[in-house]
Amino acid sequence: MREIYLDNAATTPCDPKVLKEIEPYWSKNHGNPSSFNDSGREAKKAIDQSRQKIARILGAKDQEIIFTSSATEANNLAVFGIVKSSKKTNPQPQIITTQIEHQSVLEPIKNLENWGFKTHYLSVNKEGLVDLDELKKALNPETVLVSIIYANNEIGSIQPIKKLAKIVKEFKKGSEYPYFHIDAAQAASHLDIKVNNLGVDLMTISSHKIYGPKGVAALYVRRGTKIEPIIYGGGQEFGLRSATEAVPLIVGFAKALEIVNSKKQMTNSTQEKLRTHFIKKLINLFPEIKINGPENPKDQVPHIINLTFSGIENEQLLLQLDKHGILASAGSACTSREIEPSHVLIAMGLSKEAARSSIRLSLGRQTTKADLDYVLKILPEVVKKIEDLYGSNIKEYYYN
Amino acid sequence: MREIYLDNAATTPCDPKVLKEIEPYWSKNHGNPSSFNDSGREAKKAIDQSRQKIARILGAKDQEIIFTSSATEANNLAVFGIVKSSKKTNPQPQIITTQIEHQSVLEPIKNLENWGFKTHYLSVNKEGLVDLDELKKALNPETVLVSIIYANNEIGSIQPIKKLAKIVKEFKKGSEYPYFHIDAAQAASHLDIKVNNLGVDLMTISSHKIYGPKGVAALYVRRGTKIEPIIYGGGQEFGLRSATEAVPLIVGFAKALEIVNSKKQMTNSTQEKLRTHFIKKLINLFPEIKINGPENPKDQVPHIINLTFSGIENEQLLLQLDKHGILASAGSACTSREIEPSHVLIAMGLSKEAARSSIRLSLGRQTTKADLDYVLKILPEVVKKIEDLYGSNIKEYYYN
Repeated sequence: MREIYLDNAATTPCDPKVLKEIEPYWSKNHGNPSSFNDSGREAKKAIDQSRQKIARILGAKDQEIIFTSSATEANNLAVFGIVKSSKKTNPQPQIITTQIEHQSVLEPIKNLENWGFKTHYLSVNKEGLVDLDELKKALNPETVLVSIIYANNEIGSIQPIKKLAKIVKEFKKGSEYPYFHIDAAQAASHLDIKVNNLGVDLMTISSHKIYGPKGVAALYVRRGTKIEPIIYGGGQEFGLRSATEAVPLIVGFAKALEIVNSKKQMTNSTQEKLRTHFIKKLINLFPEIKINGPENPKDQVPHIINLTFSGIENEQLLLQLDKHGILASAGSACTSREIEPSHVLIAMGLSKEAARSSIRLSLGRQTTKADLDYVLKILPEVVKKIEDLYGSNIKEYYYN
Repeated sequence: MREIYLDNAATTPCDPKVLKEIEPYWSKNHGNPSSFNDSGREAKKAIDQSRQKIARILGAKDQEIIFTSSATEANNLAVFGIVKSSKKTNPQPQIITTQIEHQSVLEPIKNLENWGFKTHYLSVNKEGLVDLDELKKALNPETVLVSIIYANNEIGSIQPIKKLAKIVKEFKKGSEYPYFHIDAAQAASHLDIKVNNLGVDLMTISSHKIYGPKGVAALYVRRGTKIEPIIYGGGQEFGLRSATEAVPLIVGFAKALEIVNSKKQMTNSTQEKLRTHFIKKLINLFPEIKINGPENPKDQVPHIINLTFSGIENEQLLLQLDKHGILASAGSACTSREIEPSHVLIAMGLSKEAARSSIRLSLGRQTTKADLDYVLKILPEVVKKIEDLYGSNIKEYYYN
């Protein structure tokens, strides 16, 4: 059966070129970068070169790139690392974030709330965009960290990072805090990730969202940032993240970022056209459909399409699509096993019912017009099938 | 040039059978285990099966296996996770460990000391073995965790885990604390790792020490253990370790453990013979050489040989061995870039000079008698060369 993978925002297939680059590091150049021998030095060189590749793409210094095992770990390091460090001078640190962050930012912050830390969650409008004035008002002398998702993983909304960075910078007026962290896991393959253009202090990027291997990510940490580790041991990664470095994964991550970066404009252009085509046809088929996310395509990464099929339960829809080889997703992968509806869609003002009727299609480099035309052919069939089965009484179905 | 890799305690080459097992999970079955679609379910199945494989080998329940990115992370999770959880009921938790732990246990504990926590470091005798009575005396009602390295990574000494577990069990008399954690990263390929035989509550095992991929490890956590995460987010790994699971690595880790487990007896028998042969010949060549570690081979994992060449600086020796394709190591990989001499050898009573004159040769499954005979041929040459260059005045060389 034909398989159309439209869950690229959850994870991407590994690029064969990346796998080829990694290959020698499994069994041949397999040394431990901390070992004082030739195999160790070879391994260390591979890491250094990968770090340099990534640093150049980010316009950063090599030592500002800290490899972690996941974007989740990088986000946790940003949140806990900054707060732990700030506790030494500030007894009541406050954190500002948004209502539409990924769980890997929200959950560490919730954990800090349990320990008495103060927080502010910026709201978003119905397009999923934050308000600059709300940030201005939320900033106070206790604020140590502002953490904002660059491109949202569920709806693709792009926050105005440069403007937000400017507000933070103007507020701090040369003082240490607050630091500005962005989660660019979903943005890295589409948007400008030059840290100085953006004006950020910390930035998370992830390998398995950009056709690299799972199990590796990085946190950019601007030189001079006061941050403590969350994992302690041999002192690797400039003391900020201990553990034997996963050399093959790091090599693969750097290669993946290099490829994604070189193809960025072309990918964006292709995916924008594909999305426009898809949505135009979709509206013809489903005139009542709600498309979630920014109205201006410039405010949205081109690979994410979030749709509400009113009255249709998203699990049913996904199961039916699965049967036709179409692999989509309900919101983020990490929430898809939860009973709660998407916190992102709720923050944008959708009802619980609407959130539960929403699915995400996320395009990849491999996605073609033929793939989407196939989806357009199947969608009406499966929607009709579900309506025939359950009627459009989602409320009764769920709440009784 | 011939290359003889004798740094297997730092990291092992990845088994080609493991790589073959992993292969489909990079680009073909590449789904996100949290995604509600077929690719996600396939990925989840692969993780579940790997978890089950590992659980069976450990004699554990599936849900007691928590995948992490490294043994370092697993050790950090054990230490911080238990202490964080215990803080709710115990304002002054104390931790007992040994003077010869890996940095990934020592450093988290040192970090806790900075926050005011109490600690006790069990001493070791000149063979690198702890004293049961010292543990008995150190235990007190505030003790929440006892963490002990099963087989030491530098000298290979095997601690009497069953006896230590019995002491902890008798002390706690059915109460919650203390929990007993062991770091079995270096032990897993050689010793009994059935958790119920050992009587442990938590156990760390690592993939890249047993011919599996780097970037994955696991913490066994006995059901009912009160432990909190150190990384928060999507709630993967039963809420104990968030992040998109590194499916290929997890699959490879399980395969590697399966292979290592099936070959354990044979490997031990081969390596014991190789080590006996090597040491016998070595003593003939260097009658004054000091062999560090337990006297009784039963108290030492067979793959580790730690040697002191008095008057010879270990960095020089390693560099010379490198030139002949012999890849050895100075103590653990993680300390080899430090200026401080090995804390393990110092704890055993060696002088700083002796510790700085010590190297570790660690055998692998691929090591042959011919390899070791080559080392025996080269060692006298390189030792003589260094003595000719520097004399045996290591003290002056270092401390002036």
